[in-house]
Amino acid sequence: MGIPVTLSYIDGEGRSHLAPGASAARPGALDIIDQTLLPGEQKRLSLTTPEAVFEAIKQLRVRGAPAIGCSAAIGLAVCAERFASSSPEEHLERIKACAAYLDSSRPTAVNLSWALKRCVGAVTARDIPGMNQQLLDEALAITAEDIRLCAAIGEAGASLLAPGMGVLTHCNAGALATAGMGTALAPIYAAMEKGVQVKVFSDETRPLLQGARLTAWELSTAGVDVTTICDSMAARVMAEGRVDLVIVGADRVAANGDTANKIGTYSLAIAAKYHHVPFFVALPFSTIDKTLASGAEIPIEERNLSEIFHCSDAKVYNPAFDVTPRELITGFITERGILTEI
Amino acid sequence: MGIPVTLSYIDGEGRSHLAPGASAARPGALDIIDQTLLPGEQKRLSLTTPEAVFEAIKQLRVRGAPAIGCSAAIGLAVCAERFASSSPEEHLERIKACAAYLDSSRPTAVNLSWALKRCVGAVTARDIPGMNQQLLDEALAITAEDIRLCAAIGEAGASLLAPGMGVLTHCNAGALATAGMGTALAPIYAAMEKGVQVKVFSDETRPLLQGARLTAWELSTAGVDVTTICDSMAARVMAEGRVDLVIVGADRVAANGDTANKIGTYSLAIAAKYHHVPFFVALPFSTIDKTLASGAEIPIEERNLSEIFHCSDAKVYNPAFDVTPRELITGFITERGILTEI
Repeated sequence: MGIPVTLSYIDGEGRSHLAPGASAARPGALDIIDQTLLPGEQKRLSLTTPEAVFEAIKQLRVRGAPAIGCSAAIGLAVCAERFASSSPEEHLERIKACAAYLDSSRPTAVNLSWALKRCVGAVTARDIPGMNQQLLDEALAITAEDIRLCAAIGEAGASLLAPGMGVLTHCNAGALATAGMGTALAPIYAAMEKGVQVKVFSDETRPLLQGARLTAWELSTAGVDVTTICDSMAARVMAEGRVDLVIVGADRVAANGDTANKIGTYSLAIAAKYHHVPFFVALPFSTIDKTLASGAEIPIEERNLSEIFHCSDAKVYNPAFDVTPRELITGFITERGILTEI
Repeated sequence: MGIPVTLSYIDGEGRSHLAPGASAARPGALDIIDQTLLPGEQKRLSLTTPEAVFEAIKQLRVRGAPAIGCSAAIGLAVCAERFASSSPEEHLERIKACAAYLDSSRPTAVNLSWALKRCVGAVTARDIPGMNQQLLDEALAITAEDIRLCAAIGEAGASLLAPGMGVLTHCNAGALATAGMGTALAPIYAAMEKGVQVKVFSDETRPLLQGARLTAWELSTAGVDVTTICDSMAARVMAEGRVDLVIVGADRVAANGDTANKIGTYSLAIAAKYHHVPFFVALPFSTIDKTLASGAEIPIEERNLSEIFHCSDAKVYNPAFDVTPRELITGFITERGILTEI
């Protein structure tokens, strides 16, 4: 089946776009695969309102820092196409308000703010159709860039892989987390295109099982050898000598290299250090937030307690992310190559 | 509600026994709480056949190394009471065969073999009723000893606790894992009896959620402040400075102190070391298997793949235990006190 298409812009004529060139003359829609239903059901959603886009991001129907950025950008464009504004000034205010609203859907991924700011900043036209076209062009430019970034990250990271190597990953930083072939999984896909097959261990990733549901699905669908393990088994698999490399994604990286990613990444990095297994973070540069000096400043989303099974009388703590300090990270796989300094 | 009674011997008159003094003249039953149904349902099972006892251990209706040992011992006694043997010699053969069968229900916990060997070894009578009484007396002696051991472990471990301390535990090494007040949780209960309340973080413990289902239930039922977290969150909670101490149980400890316990224990020990958090293993001495030089010799059970959610095309790896090397363990909380050498 190949690598899934996570999101796109569907124009008024029903054509799918992943790069600039679409017309905003007739209202389009943000098209996403509903990841909460995977792998059992492959259902696509067509979103056209601020509330629907907000809900899809909040409820993780689309997730992964780059995919959230692209979806919010396309979402903003399709919402603007439908605003009944009486003047260009009012239209710009509504665009800004919509961007602020979408930006509040999730707090940790920096790509969300970054993409929305970039789209709003691209609006310079004095007429409503011109403004809408600029928003759409910018959203699709971000999407096309993400696809190119994923490919470049894949190319850089593939150099680390050799046939039969064991690669451990956490959560889903694959095609489903981006508009392209993923970040952490991109090196695996790029290596496969060169005929290099590796063995992937995929942490199930509690509490929402993105690894067991999404990573295992997209890798096995693409023909990659993948084994699901519980998060708590990663250290044992390392002790068994079956992991040559860990590659994870990132939701936000501070200026000093501290990396916020899905809860459990930190534990994995500590275990990798203990076993002398190289630990890489794959990311586009847009994930780096130079305004934050260290990971201590990254806001960590706490999600609903109902995500974790618990007895009625027990409390629950459910942070969605953790911060891996720079000292535990071997290097960063980026579109500019593999870096030890960022 | 207090601390639950995990198992007992129910005699022919329906009386419950946790210490020698019961008569084997009329067939009794092994009484257990079905832990696969907790916390939703509190159902007790009455087991009287080798197959039923085997199934209950295999399917984790009763689990935890000490509870498995006590249950197998009582189970052997109640099965023997029902053998239709034509001679004492045949009876002894059937007892030995039944013990070997029950011993094969789970491979990792040493208490299972230990308790069954001890019961078979106690049979010296030349008549069938005498043999049955010896089996029952020995099973109930083991049970009573386990209760005393738990209390002694609690007493020793309570000395480590002060009001408001954060204690992290994994899986369930509580009352539900023993005939008494548990091993890893015993210090918490013993401290509470002295008026010392701590805050417990309980790993949910994938894949079977013994922490979220059993530890959270028994601690909250007993009035202890308990917070359920995903296994992958433990390192973050440590980084937040909320864990002063880790206490876990053990399924089998090698002569050099390497400790087999529920999968995830090893990862936790590595994280504790990284955060300079003391890491204790609570256990009765019967958990130590002096015949094994190191953890490398401990057999690790791989359980059914269906325990872990996975895509149809993905493989699964499901080891039920891991081995924590001695170097990561601060000390052992035992009935003989807190030891750094065992």
